Amino acid sequence: MRERVERVEERMQQMVGSLSNEAVGDLFASLPHGKRLRAKMVLKIAGYLESSIKLAAVIELIHAASLLHDDVIDEAQTRRGEISLNASEGNRQAIMMGDILYSKGFEELTSFDRSIAAKIAHAVTLLSIGEMMDVRLSGSFNPDIESYLQMIYQKTAALIEATAAAAAMLAGKDEKIYGLYGKNLGIAFQIVDDILDVTQSSEKLGKPAMHDFEEGKTTLPYIYLYESLNEGDRDKLISMHGKKLDDAQKNWIRGLMETTESVQKAYLYARELGEEAIALMRGEEEEALAQIVEDMIEREF
Amino acid sequence: MRERVERVEERMQQMVGSLSNEAVGDLFASLPHGKRLRAKMVLKIAGYLESSIKLAAVIELIHAASLLHDDVIDEAQTRRGEISLNASEGNRQAIMMGDILYSKGFEELTSFDRSIAAKIAHAVTLLSIGEMMDVRLSGSFNPDIESYLQMIYQKTAALIEATAAAAAMLAGKDEKIYGLYGKNLGIAFQIVDDILDVTQSSEKLGKPAMHDFEEGKTTLPYIYLYESLNEGDRDKLISMHGKKLDDAQKNWIRGLMETTESVQKAYLYARELGEEAIALMRGEEEEALAQIVEDMIEREF
Repeated sequence: MRERVERVEERMQQMVGSLSNEAVGDLFASLPHGKRLRAKMVLKIAGYLESSIKLAAVIELIHAASLLHDDVIDEAQTRRGEISLNASEGNRQAIMMGDILYSKGFEELTSFDRSIAAKIAHAVTLLSIGEMMDVRLSGSFNPDIESYLQMIYQKTAALIEATAAAAAMLAGKDEKIYGLYGKNLGIAFQIVDDILDVTQSSEKLGKPAMHDFEEGKTTLPYIYLYESLNEGDRDKLISMHGKKLDDAQKNWIRGLMETTESVQKAYLYARELGEEAIALMRGEEEEALAQIVEDMIEREF
Repeated sequence: MRERVERVEERMQQMVGSLSNEAVGDLFASLPHGKRLRAKMVLKIAGYLESSIKLAAVIELIHAASLLHDDVIDEAQTRRGEISLNASEGNRQAIMMGDILYSKGFEELTSFDRSIAAKIAHAVTLLSIGEMMDVRLSGSFNPDIESYLQMIYQKTAALIEATAAAAAMLAGKDEKIYGLYGKNLGIAFQIVDDILDVTQSSEKLGKPAMHDFEEGKTTLPYIYLYESLNEGDRDKLISMHGKKLDDAQKNWIRGLMETTESVQKAYLYARELGEEAIALMRGEEEEALAQIVEDMIEREF
């Protein structure tokens, strides 16, 4: 698989190289590669063909663009354990580079069947709206699980859903089944990500631990925690929202999350979605795709 | 024509409305409409049909998105005489809103023929690269006319060129002729814009006068001025680059631009491109499209 993902990297390089702009090429080369989850998914669903390599490259360009803008919006200092582009080169460079990768991605997307292009493009619209929803929800403590789930669907899962569906269309497979697989995987993925922010050390995360809540994000473990608390503790939790936490506060939150089993409940929610996704893929005899879900759910736990 | 452009506005509203997000709808409603040059061009080339109204709306959405990001990147305080979205709502809102309008525009674009979608998408890639080139060129005084022209082609003219070409494709007209018309018009348009920054008052511009040079932009009148100066005055001009100018400095620059006829030379350059565009349209018996060029070149002179 690593060799195949290498071909996707090359294809991305080629797309960016065709822009014939040295500054853009240098900035692109400085970006961390990440897990390339979406590329692997395309290749596993649609096979190792020129068209699937191209689709994978396009989606990864678009994903990279969205991360660049996310990091500007969240004022992130790190990305995958390295200094983020907005932090090292400034917001302007990160915004412009994001715009370039988005537009190049869309340009390449127009070479695919209209139904495939429309599917991916629609997901990017949802992703952009999800980002805005994330920021709006971060303005105050959000105890509402439905708006949290809708937001992470839009922000994270919609593009994974569209990736799986588009790859299925490319391969003549059932786009509904694969789309649902991608959707469940995407939501579970984000919940696990949100859990890791609570349970992991800063070193393992490659970014400050418990930073989501400091940034104003009320993720699923916090929503479950809130539901389990008495009024006094609820007020105390809300009073910590969106502020820098000291070690005592972090320990208080983590301790209560343990006794109320909030992390565990959030994990079970993700696990259930994951099981559904696994069952869908086992039904299609897609063991490798089922394994992606397993690996994702089990990561760092 | 006003009534027809109204239909484009309605179509844009409808596209944004389909996102079913109140915050996005409110922000969109707060944006100034501008001249809708691109929409008018589409309707004049491709006629007043459902498909041309849709194409015009898509292109105006994309154009609006690019302006939102431009204003963040340039730290602009005003846009068309009103406070800019980045200034009133903050950079984050402007970035996210730009991303939403871009992605919705691309999504709608996928309903057109692949050749049309690819043409517009490619222009947006050029536009994004042009923005980065603009920022890079602004880092120091740029006496090179070729890089200035390439940058304004990418940043401004490429989308106007693609607009005209795509509208021609929609109408079964010659995309090469109409594309060249749009390209010439676009470059001339930007040069005139750059000239107006020097010659107009802040009140008329709806933004501070001579701000381009303060921002580091060496536009065509400045390049011609530089070419006409002796070494001492060149050094003096360069020393003022990218800094806030006082009235004495502004008068010094304007006075020399007068005696060296730098504004006039820049205007002649734009005029020549405009004449070419007019001739192309007269050859196609497109008087209304020729008139757009006339109006644009003569504006505020």
